[in-house]
Amino acid sequence: MIPEGDVEFVRTGYGKDAVKVLTIRREGRYHYIKEIEANIQLTLKTLKDYIHGDNSDIIPTDTMKNTIHALAKLKGIRTIEEFGLDICDHFLTSFHHVSRAKVYIQEVPWKRLQKEGAEHVHAFIHSGEGTHFCEVEQIQNEPPVIHSGLRDMLVLKSAQSGFEGFLKDRFTTLPETRDRVFSTVTYAKWRYSTSRRLDFDAAWKSVKESILEIFAGPYNLGSYSPSIQKSLYEAQCLSLSRVPEMEEIEIIMPNKHYFMIDMTKFGIPNNNEVLLPVDNPSGDITGTVRRKVASKL
Amino acid sequence: MIPEGDVEFVRTGYGKDAVKVLTIRREGRYHYIKEIEANIQLTLKTLKDYIHGDNSDIIPTDTMKNTIHALAKLKGIRTIEEFGLDICDHFLTSFHHVSRAKVYIQEVPWKRLQKEGAEHVHAFIHSGEGTHFCEVEQIQNEPPVIHSGLRDMLVLKSAQSGFEGFLKDRFTTLPETRDRVFSTVTYAKWRYSTSRRLDFDAAWKSVKESILEIFAGPYNLGSYSPSIQKSLYEAQCLSLSRVPEMEEIEIIMPNKHYFMIDMTKFGIPNNNEVLLPVDNPSGDITGTVRRKVASKL
Amino acid sequence: MIPEGDVEFVRTGYGKDAVKVLTIRREGRYHYIKEIEANIQLTLKTLKDYIHGDNSDIIPTDTMKNTIHALAKLKGIRTIEEFGLDICDHFLTSFHHVSRAKVYIQEVPWKRLQKEGAEHVHAFIHSGEGTHFCEVEQIQNEPPVIHSGLRDMLVLKSAQSGFEGFLKDRFTTLPETRDRVFSTVTYAKWRYSTSRRLDFDAAWKSVKESILEIFAGPYNLGSYSPSIQKSLYEAQCLSLSRVPEMEEIEIIMPNKHYFMIDMTKFGIPNNNEVLLPVDNPSGDITGTVRRKVASKL
Amino acid sequence: MIPEGDVEFVRTGYGKDAVKVLTIRREGRYHYIKEIEANIQLTLKTLKDYIHGDNSDIIPTDTMKNTIHALAKLKGIRTIEEFGLDICDHFLTSFHHVSRAKVYIQEVPWKRLQKEGAEHVHAFIHSGEGTHFCEVEQIQNEPPVIHSGLRDMLVLKSAQSGFEGFLKDRFTTLPETRDRVFSTVTYAKWRYSTSRRLDFDAAWKSVKESILEIFAGPYNLGSYSPSIQKSLYEAQCLSLSRVPEMEEIEIIMPNKHYFMIDMTKFGIPNNNEVLLPVDNPSGDITGTVRRKVASKL
Repeated sequence: MIPEGDVEFVRTGYGKDAVKVLTIRREGRYHYIKEIEANIQLTLKTLKDYIHGDNSDIIPTDTMKNTIHALAKLKGIRTIEEFGLDICDHFLTSFHHVSRAKVYIQEVPWKRLQKEGAEHVHAFIHSGEGTHFCEVEQIQNEPPVIHSGLRDMLVLKSAQSGFEGFLKDRFTTLPETRDRVFSTVTYAKWRYSTSRRLDFDAAWKSVKESILEIFAGPYNLGSYSPSIQKSLYEAQCLSLSRVPEMEEIEIIMPNKHYFMIDMTKFGIPNNNEVLLPVDNPSGDITGTVRRKVASKL
Repeated sequence: MIPEGDVEFVRTGYGKDAVKVLTIRREGRYHYIKEIEANIQLTLKTLKDYIHGDNSDIIPTDTMKNTIHALAKLKGIRTIEEFGLDICDHFLTSFHHVSRAKVYIQEVPWKRLQKEGAEHVHAFIHSGEGTHFCEVEQIQNEPPVIHSGLRDMLVLKSAQSGFEGFLKDRFTTLPETRDRVFSTVTYAKWRYSTSRRLDFDAAWKSVKESILEIFAGPYNLGSYSPSIQKSLYEAQCLSLSRVPEMEEIEIIMPNKHYFMIDMTKFGIPNNNEVLLPVDNPSGDITGTVRRKVASKL
Repeated sequence: MIPEGDVEFVRTGYGKDAVKVLTIRREGRYHYIKEIEANIQLTLKTLKDYIHGDNSDIIPTDTMKNTIHALAKLKGIRTIEEFGLDICDHFLTSFHHVSRAKVYIQEVPWKRLQKEGAEHVHAFIHSGEGTHFCEVEQIQNEPPVIHSGLRDMLVLKSAQSGFEGFLKDRFTTLPETRDRVFSTVTYAKWRYSTSRRLDFDAAWKSVKESILEIFAGPYNLGSYSPSIQKSLYEAQCLSLSRVPEMEEIEIIMPNKHYFMIDMTKFGIPNNNEVLLPVDNPSGDITGTVRRKVASKL
Repeated sequence: MIPEGDVEFVRTGYGKDAVKVLTIRREGRYHYIKEIEANIQLTLKTLKDYIHGDNSDIIPTDTMKNTIHALAKLKGIRTIEEFGLDICDHFLTSFHHVSRAKVYIQEVPWKRLQKEGAEHVHAFIHSGEGTHFCEVEQIQNEPPVIHSGLRDMLVLKSAQSGFEGFLKDRFTTLPETRDRVFSTVTYAKWRYSTSRRLDFDAAWKSVKESILEIFAGPYNLGSYSPSIQKSLYEAQCLSLSRVPEMEEIEIIMPNKHYFMIDMTKFGIPNNNEVLLPVDNPSGDITGTVRRKVASKL
């Protein structure tokens, strides 16, 4: 075995994954619900648990789970970001030997049942049109860093997308096109420039709408996308302009391909009317931009 | 090895699973899309492929895939049920040595982007609020049998559900309750009494709405569910009354449990405000009912 | 709403899915473990829960879960089939208003750690080389019906497989071949002709080996498969000859395709050395055979 | 929209995910296979695709896929790490406007069929006892950085594990124990201190065996684990001592809990013989250690 003195620690951490909670807030017959799934991770100042098997500084992960349950009752869950701030604050103020707390929370997308404008008082449907998540991380004696995010929003447009003028080499077989299907499962994650509490749900909704606006374009016409790269960047710029507290935003847009099916072998013309959805491989385009220092809030 | 004469066939079949197609129908700038995933299975009259390795009667599964692609172009996909009928018809009329064709089709739930009443001409979002599927089976020289179905519709209500008065034995520890969370992922599948083409999409929507109506009750109040069994049966009766061509309907409602979290050990009261979502085990309630013969259409 | 008298029940049932248990049997330092996941379903003689919301005959699914836990302690789990028999027996003898009990059990494939012939006393590794499952169903006052099964055994052979001489039509583009990759995820399920307890684990192992023997052929050579149909049928015949208590066996063999990648466009010859694994669509071949009556045990 | 000058890029990248290949190397009747799944990502020196929609520098992701296929033929796949090096080298030497190439590759765990010491010439079974993956990243004009890893190795021991002496607070309800089940899905990822080609498969096997050795202890006895933290650290030290080219190693060990089932309510004693496997939440322990500078190779 390697001598203990020849090894040093780079990072440690431990926690609880997939802690689930549903909260119900009742205002008379009218119910509000929040269901979340949280991952919590703490880093301790000491390493004696790893090196010597001394557990005396360990806050058991079972206690972390209980704490999240208890805080859901004591603090409530107004937004997942605020709940993440509450959790970090609890661990850093209760335990001075905790050097870092990090919480990931995602919200189950429950949508109130609606019918002709009426809203149901207590019945909800799970609507998979994009999931809201956040990440809050705090170092002892420092302000928390807050990220919000959107994932699993799957969209498709059947017009106004092309891909032309790209580099060709020996292995290139892709034809150029001005008329392809563009489908992607958007992932976006942004960092706030502030650690104070703001209207996180409104900011999230604003980013979601910005991405959809750039993707879809005007409702009666669409707008042409020459590449995913360009559309992704435009969605970032629109988001930054609409959410002034946003410091930096990463967007990932996989290219879920649909290929035209060649039917000439069957003697049938196929004018881009019948396409093959392709599971893999998928393209994957990513970019992260931030406000320039001079233009920061 | 067992002598060939000592073995007999009970069933055979072969086919292609997960055949995917997207079709785009363009009316000027306005696009209609249908994306489906189909499983097709044929049974042949002969067994020489199994017994002797003689492939001369086999229609390759690759050909089945090509055929589905070609039929999507030649026939279009108005509804998945009609497309299922077209596929069965093709194989039974083209090949007299096919004794049975069976097709399962599910539709990807693309929803047109909408904003303040306006509909986008060609942009869609994937909306996971319940998937439409169907099953069409046809025996050579017989009319097709058509099933439609709904699955993956996840709903939750935070009031008006209880479970009391059940049998108790040595192993019973469940407390009675008049106030629990009721959450389920509805699965429904029904058979039509006719093989003619009707408005399948309207029938599907009608069943979906019937199930939601029974589940949720009046929007300002809800309605009390004494058990999943009762709610399931009521949803079946309402569906049968609204879709006259429905002969028989099966509904499966798993009980996705949410347990009250006991916080007395923390000295915190929890009046059913913070609950634990439980992944497994889950309850599972099922029932199949049909119109009585005298009342059939 | 449809009048109650116009509707009749075809089937009912309710139960608990994904009930999990790990049992440890200790013989000194040497430990034996069985981890299972069970689905249980009961059918009651009465329908008053569905029709009238009267729960007095309902054995709660929570009680079913507790009962499985308790029986794991009281009876032990020698094989999943025997445990399934114990569970059915419990419910049918304890409750005369239960008309039918059905249990599905699958065993987590823990394998004892081994090294140069030595076996570890209490450490195990999860080995995904095929899962053992069973289904036991019993009607009140009738003997139980026992099925065993194998699933998720993924195999591949890179030689000795072809597909030729099949039917061609307008939509056929598949080339004939005497040298293709054959890969499948075997599913097999068989019914015993007896309801007495036999060595179920030995029978299961025998079927698994029969399927592998037919698939792979002699170790130094292999054996040629002209179609999946033929290989599937031979595996059934070998299984029936080795397990005399087997009455009937269904095998499903999806064809997980690997396509030769055409590199002529890059000016590179590819002599079936580089292939593309295809996720979907997949072929799907199935067949069920049984012993002829005269040859039954 | 935010003015272009107010935004700057932090990171960009694009590529292809889930590129699959199977290679067959034939030595007479004896076949060697490698099946991999690769993700490739490139970063370009220019940003004109994002900002201006000018695609002229873009190497299409479809070309990347073709290139991986072609390199599998031209270079072969001896180990996934060497293939990763080949891929990075290709893109950085072929295109000077590529500033960074990053490849993730995982190997499908095919195991040659074996029986009583004999090995099959061309038949394989998929064995889920841990997956080998790697990550190779190279910046233009710099040496490549090579990581290898192991994931999805699920193990369980039914003795010689405890957790005691931990911190208690208001929310702690976990009892101390010297006898619990320890089950984890090991994830390990390590960086090499060199970019030259070494016997990567041997190093991987050595790390896998080191982790199993620490986890299981002597085969006739086991060895006591006072916490996952301690076992994780010991596995890291043993790995570092056995693989001299290893610079740094991260291990993640989720704690897949098994809880004792309380049967006192049924009047049945349960002496840790029947346990409940818990899917979520799970504990999650992580740590990264490296050789101290003085002791580096």
